[in-house]
Amino acid sequence: MSAGGSRLTAAADVRAAVRSGVITGPTERLAPEHVQANLIVVPSEYAGELADLCARNPVPCPVVEQLAPGAYEPLCARGADLRTDLGRYRVWRDGELAESPRDVRALWSNDLVAFLIGCSFTFDHALAQAGLVARHYELERNVPMYRTRVPLAPAGRLHGAMVVSMRPYRADDVERVRDVTRPYRVGHGEPVAWGDPRQLGIEELMRPDYGDPPVMRPDEIPVFWGCGVTPQSVIVASSLSFAITHEPGHMFVTDLVHADLARTAEPSARML
Amino acid sequence: MSAGGSRLTAAADVRAAVRSGVITGPTERLAPEHVQANLIVVPSEYAGELADLCARNPVPCPVVEQLAPGAYEPLCARGADLRTDLGRYRVWRDGELAESPRDVRALWSNDLVAFLIGCSFTFDHALAQAGLVARHYELERNVPMYRTRVPLAPAGRLHGAMVVSMRPYRADDVERVRDVTRPYRVGHGEPVAWGDPRQLGIEELMRPDYGDPPVMRPDEIPVFWGCGVTPQSVIVASSLSFAITHEPGHMFVTDLVHADLARTAEPSARML
Repeated sequence: MSAGGSRLTAAADVRAAVRSGVITGPTERLAPEHVQANLIVVPSEYAGELADLCARNPVPCPVVEQLAPGAYEPLCARGADLRTDLGRYRVWRDGELAESPRDVRALWSNDLVAFLIGCSFTFDHALAQAGLVARHYELERNVPMYRTRVPLAPAGRLHGAMVVSMRPYRADDVERVRDVTRPYRVGHGEPVAWGDPRQLGIEELMRPDYGDPPVMRPDEIPVFWGCGVTPQSVIVASSLSFAITHEPGHMFVTDLVHADLARTAEPSARML
Repeated sequence: MSAGGSRLTAAADVRAAVRSGVITGPTERLAPEHVQANLIVVPSEYAGELADLCARNPVPCPVVEQLAPGAYEPLCARGADLRTDLGRYRVWRDGELAESPRDVRALWSNDLVAFLIGCSFTFDHALAQAGLVARHYELERNVPMYRTRVPLAPAGRLHGAMVVSMRPYRADDVERVRDVTRPYRVGHGEPVAWGDPRQLGIEELMRPDYGDPPVMRPDEIPVFWGCGVTPQSVIVASSLSFAITHEPGHMFVTDLVHADLARTAEPSARML
């Protein structure tokens, strides 16, 4: 079997293990060659606005795939089922968290549109390969995530503020960290900020809004990246009537490999 | 001659009149059916980073065209010359404004890469057609523009804050204004904010950083859009060694018509 074939098997194996309940924790480090994705599912009346919000805010909300109304088998993972293959879901009603089921088949309808949004787990793998292992990755913790005061460009009824993930690094490693993560545009690309968290409106670094508290060393500074949990802050800010998302850290494992998301140099000339 | 043909002639006529010095003022309302563009020209060593900055910040920096190194005849205006066909240029050295020439042929080299960035003049035309005439457009003033405290997502050596343009409207017209401007994504799309200017870090609404002061009526609120002058704030913040831009309001008139930039609904399903 080819390496590509065995990697595909690994992704399908992880999805099967999540679906059956054998794997119940965050998905970082599972099928490490594979792209993982954030999930957001909205009624079709919001799909155009969500597509526009993502297009206007591609750093926190890079679209891996937008499915057709009612569809739950994505092109990026043939045979998968978005209603069962994530470990934990969040169901939102009128902008509030209503339930946290393990399966959303009973809630599905032909009116729902699913979006898969890139995830920083893509570059965590690249950072580890470059010898710049992220602390949460090393310690097998969930990455710390924060709501910021950086406003998103709104789209119709959808608005909110950017959510960021954070990894501590020594200041003199920041340029290498930027270089490693930059090509993975659909995985949020390079950091949005580093150093003082107040530049993003973050007051309490040791108390993240999602994930586990950070473990920082005295010679390290926080480095912040756009985060695919951002649509969850949009659900709350915009009081969406209904939405389904994943639980932060409990991602959808796709059949794509990281190289599929890396963007190399732009063509030398292009129009529109 | 077809309408399309006569419109193309109008755009070429405006460029010729600007080139010959017959037209010297801001270009709003000239060749009104045609897309106008912001210009930023950088040494080739910065071109990849500028393309990345635009991709990460598409609301203020939507790319109409990126030209090949050394090229000055864009695909969007055959026969035009970016070195002569704008009314006023700004030349920047080490992040500071150095000269304001009428022609930049003497400064051109095969190492320079030109970017054309969408301009809100596109939707000013659409707003006028919808009966929501922008005040500066009605009064033949330059649009007021402001530096904000909203950080751009950085790209390599390039960083800075968003610049916005402002048009006053009555609060109960804002939703219609948003609807009219939304489809013109490559012309900055719908507003980024409206109401209190302090949400963007703007302290003095009557003292814009670029353009003419606003003329506001008591029942109006400011409405803010991303602005293609943003790259000029990036030049300053990032201390670029060299750059050429237009003078705000003195745009490049392309052969494209506004409908070319309007984005209708996304396809119902797509991957990457």
